Amino acid sequence: MKALVFDEKIFIADLPKPARKENESLIKILVAGICNTDLEIIKGYMGYKGVLGHEFVGIVEDSGNHTLINKRVVGEINIGCGKCDFCLQGLSRHCQNRSVIGILAKQGVFAQYITLPDANLCLVPDSIPDEHAVFVEPLAAALEILEQVKIIPATSVAIIGDGKLALLILQVIQLLGVHCVLFGKHEDKLLIAQNLGANTESTTKKYKRVFDLVIEASGKKEGLLKALELLKPRGQLVLKSTFHGKVNLNFAGLVVDEITLIGSRCGPFAPAIRLLEKELIRIDPLIAKVFPFDDAIAAFDYAQSGHLKVLLNYK
Amino acid sequence: MKALVFDEKIFIADLPKPARKENESLIKILVAGICNTDLEIIKGYMGYKGVLGHEFVGIVEDSGNHTLINKRVVGEINIGCGKCDFCLQGLSRHCQNRSVIGILAKQGVFAQYITLPDANLCLVPDSIPDEHAVFVEPLAAALEILEQVKIIPATSVAIIGDGKLALLILQVIQLLGVHCVLFGKHEDKLLIAQNLGANTESTTKKYKRVFDLVIEASGKKEGLLKALELLKPRGQLVLKSTFHGKVNLNFAGLVVDEITLIGSRCGPFAPAIRLLEKELIRIDPLIAKVFPFDDAIAAFDYAQSGHLKVLLNYK
Repeated sequence: MKALVFDEKIFIADLPKPARKENESLIKILVAGICNTDLEIIKGYMGYKGVLGHEFVGIVEDSGNHTLINKRVVGEINIGCGKCDFCLQGLSRHCQNRSVIGILAKQGVFAQYITLPDANLCLVPDSIPDEHAVFVEPLAAALEILEQVKIIPATSVAIIGDGKLALLILQVIQLLGVHCVLFGKHEDKLLIAQNLGANTESTTKKYKRVFDLVIEASGKKEGLLKALELLKPRGQLVLKSTFHGKVNLNFAGLVVDEITLIGSRCGPFAPAIRLLEKELIRIDPLIAKVFPFDDAIAAFDYAQSGHLKVLLNYK
Repeated sequence: MKALVFDEKIFIADLPKPARKENESLIKILVAGICNTDLEIIKGYMGYKGVLGHEFVGIVEDSGNHTLINKRVVGEINIGCGKCDFCLQGLSRHCQNRSVIGILAKQGVFAQYITLPDANLCLVPDSIPDEHAVFVEPLAAALEILEQVKIIPATSVAIIGDGKLALLILQVIQLLGVHCVLFGKHEDKLLIAQNLGANTESTTKKYKRVFDLVIEASGKKEGLLKALELLKPRGQLVLKSTFHGKVNLNFAGLVVDEITLIGSRCGPFAPAIRLLEKELIRIDPLIAKVFPFDDAIAAFDYAQSGHLKVLLNYK
């Protein structure tokens, strides 16, 4: 099968079709999405080498669970050991022995096939098109914020960033009826945010210490520092971006203002599928371009130049 | 009146006795305590210049509120504007126009007299001796953790640091019945912690990713980095230390493990007074030495060489 591999550089390789183990399904990828994490990995994040990619929708070609065969599925990207305290609490996303599709010790989805534990698969309702289903994983990551932070309608919220994830978070947050301002630097993306109903700003200058909750989704170090300036004392800062490298921070400021910083990663798939099925999240404006999988390298170049979601079509 | 002033260096000065305004009391200091924040200020923290000190017990010599006169009091160190949202919510500790005794735009208590708003004063029950009452402020800071974090008996807790504040936090946390390990580097202080009923360790080596909650109270940058190693995924790290300077941190680690960082500063006085009155917190082992106020500079030198609480006696 064809696969997009990262090992110092990215290239297309011809790899053997993976063999499924017991309790695993073999999935033929239909559509995959390029995430900023993929772009960070090729800068060195996580030290991962191998087949990239973790956002996908596919069709089960073979499985020990016959009810899954020929079903369209998306897949939870963390594969836990199934035995540790985290796995037993349903938090296999934090299993210390986990592998993560295309990120940690597990082949990614930028390949024609992947095997995954049946327990990782979620059925996709027929009404959700492939190009929307591939957003379940990042939408789940946006919903993770609601798993971690109590947001009430009176909470004043700022989102830093105008990329793919920021625009999903924006839509999730707006469903709660809160006042939300999105800060970004790209006119075209801010226009999309406005069309999604957002208040947008291209600078944070007017907004010092005014938000209860700031969500950093810019993927940039500067975003983190800006976010802290926006927060009220006792405010909460959700960190959604995984970027490669360190930030030099004055922690005394966090202590004096009693700021809470909350790291936030992968989220629950089921509510993401429900929101997509109910068409409560607009996906089409977030798709920059769909490339045939054969043109995956060109697709990566395109994604790296700062476009919104770039999809790979394997069909 | 005599006062200990910091302006590039510390020295004893003769200053005019302060005049109280309406709604303020004039307080004669009985005993004051030297806090690590005082030691950080003389390294440059907060850029404060003036009379140092914020931990005290005193006696009201004059007040518009006659019921306060001749009463023994301790005082909330933050003086809010009384009009902003924070003040109106009872959170004058976060008023953006606040002054803070001996830290920000307000004379400190290392002087024979101070004036304070009547609203900042709390009466001290007769059964609490001066040398214990002076601990109300740092004990309130320890109790602030319980205002911010839900701790249940099953929570596994680590405390980093074996100083004055760490030993107060230890005692507060132990009252909840949780399993708590205190990590420190000073044999004499670890022995005190053991006598207070703690499990102590001089190295974190054996403890990677095992605690639900870590409280950083070492006052050192390295403490923050150690604390992160001790935390389970989804764990909470309370930052109690205000130290001067920046820390270089890989924030992607916080995101991947979904760690929550919580800045924690001043706390509520009333519960601190209740715990002291009920003798549920042992104070005597935390007192390193009591100096007459005339020897305040020698007391500072002594405190800077790493001893536990150094008190100044004005009587």
